[in-house]
Amino acid sequence: MSGLIALDWGTSSLRAFRFDGAGRLAETRTRPWGIRHLPEGGCDAALAGITAGWPALPRLACGMVGSRNGWHEMPYLDTPANAMQLGGALGSVRAADGMDVHLVPGLRDPLGPDVMRGEETQLVGALALRPALAGAATFILPGTHSKWAVVRDGAVTGFRTVMTGELFAVLLRHSILGATGAEAADDAEAFARGVADARGSGAAGALGRLFSARALMLDGALAPASVPDYLSGLLIGEEFRAALASGLARRDTPLQLIGEAALCGRYRRAAALFDIDLPPPIADAAAHGLRQLATLAGLVHPAPEESRAC
Amino acid sequence: MSGLIALDWGTSSLRAFRFDGAGRLAETRTRPWGIRHLPEGGCDAALAGITAGWPALPRLACGMVGSRNGWHEMPYLDTPANAMQLGGALGSVRAADGMDVHLVPGLRDPLGPDVMRGEETQLVGALALRPALAGAATFILPGTHSKWAVVRDGAVTGFRTVMTGELFAVLLRHSILGATGAEAADDAEAFARGVADARGSGAAGALGRLFSARALMLDGALAPASVPDYLSGLLIGEEFRAALASGLARRDTPLQLIGEAALCGRYRRAAALFDIDLPPPIADAAAHGLRQLATLAGLVHPAPEESRAC
Repeated sequence: MSGLIALDWGTSSLRAFRFDGAGRLAETRTRPWGIRHLPEGGCDAALAGITAGWPALPRLACGMVGSRNGWHEMPYLDTPANAMQLGGALGSVRAADGMDVHLVPGLRDPLGPDVMRGEETQLVGALALRPALAGAATFILPGTHSKWAVVRDGAVTGFRTVMTGELFAVLLRHSILGATGAEAADDAEAFARGVADARGSGAAGALGRLFSARALMLDGALAPASVPDYLSGLLIGEEFRAALASGLARRDTPLQLIGEAALCGRYRRAAALFDIDLPPPIADAAAHGLRQLATLAGLVHPAPEESRAC
Repeated sequence: MSGLIALDWGTSSLRAFRFDGAGRLAETRTRPWGIRHLPEGGCDAALAGITAGWPALPRLACGMVGSRNGWHEMPYLDTPANAMQLGGALGSVRAADGMDVHLVPGLRDPLGPDVMRGEETQLVGALALRPALAGAATFILPGTHSKWAVVRDGAVTGFRTVMTGELFAVLLRHSILGATGAEAADDAEAFARGVADARGSGAAGALGRLFSARALMLDGALAPASVPDYLSGLLIGEEFRAALASGLARRDTPLQLIGEAALCGRYRRAAALFDIDLPPPIADAAAHGLRQLATLAGLVHPAPEESRAC
């Protein structure tokens, strides 16, 4: 009776996690049914499809499914906000099968303003998995829209969205920087050079260095195939430079990655070039965050081993 | 016998200026025949078409026509470089009509590295028109790839390319920032807000603020139709912030725009928000620069009034 179906439902994909009665992650499914790529029948059909054959369990979803263009719009909770407040602010939508899908609200940082949907749940999951970081830490969630989030005393106190992944893609696809005439090739040295150039840009910042990706190539100092890795290093390096300059990241406070190993690996290499040793990333943070929020909201009961851990 | 056909030949357009024997600009023609949009018959056909009916005169061209993908590749001259050095480094290509087209080399700043083709000629023209700036000034040449160039003692000592215009276009066309569902509308207040946000970003810089253009809209603080003007202000404001932070621009040294009135108007408004009073832009700098370089190279003889001015 403590099982849960947890849904990480973003723009381009949908992941479903089935937790069993003991609080164990029993099964994970992934479908390309993000809210912009729904199958015929929309959200209801996607839900039915991805949970086919699973028992009827409480369902909790996070991500863009709660946006204006999602299934049901959820308001944003303003920072500072902690897991308890998020768990207390769940909403719900009635699915075609007659049962509710509970929804996690997004977070809004009024100081930006800035917004997130889905990452707040990953942050809850990361703090559940690494409670030692709850006191003071900055979390990095790399992606299309990377998030840098500051946590103090268990609450997300502020965050910033950096469009690194999207900028990288549109610059290579649609700007002069992508006009290299070459297939991209892995070049760790070019990546490191980009990071170093971002770090070296100082207070001027790396936005004015984007053209370097072309000028270095024209100058014969960068192979055409290495332009993407240089640009990747420049943009990720700029995230670190700016975060350190703004105080979003501090050298005396733990920095922790959340996300997939490959992309997080780039951030770890960039961090090393800023003389920062980043620990391995936290994976599956969304699943654990959803289960944590479901527990706090009383949708499920904590598993015995979790009670002990708390 | 001192006439000249001056060609400002870029990627997307071709402009031809006919100077008469007295050194006066007698006629200007514009065609959409940039080196990426040549008519059938290529550069020769474009040249014949745009100069149809004009007398046989010495011809001097600047811009991307001298690039690898242009008519004839010209090497770059390294900074520092002055008008005399540029005029002494002209190359030429023989046209189908049996006469030469002389070509201006580009400039390369080895410190970037960074490169320009065409703007070096505009800088020569601007200095010919405003010799008082030759001692010490920073020139701003807004565009797809904006250039900020430092001049000391008559020489271009360094410069930086900022991809403002291209970044603005690709972000609005291909990124989430353009997904506003609204037609762009003029909004001077949104532009000013973007400039202020860039200035306020301090040492962190505005690259990490790009997402604000969306977050402000989602927050109801920016009309969807005003997103482009906000983004324009943010990117142009970032040019000023970064140039001041890097020393490329200094508050104790004249700043001078070169270019078209409409785009330069945005830079003047942005400068005002940095408490900098920018004078009106210098127009037709390319034509005057080409004539100046032709004179220095001995392709034409100085007109009487120019001799007096010198």
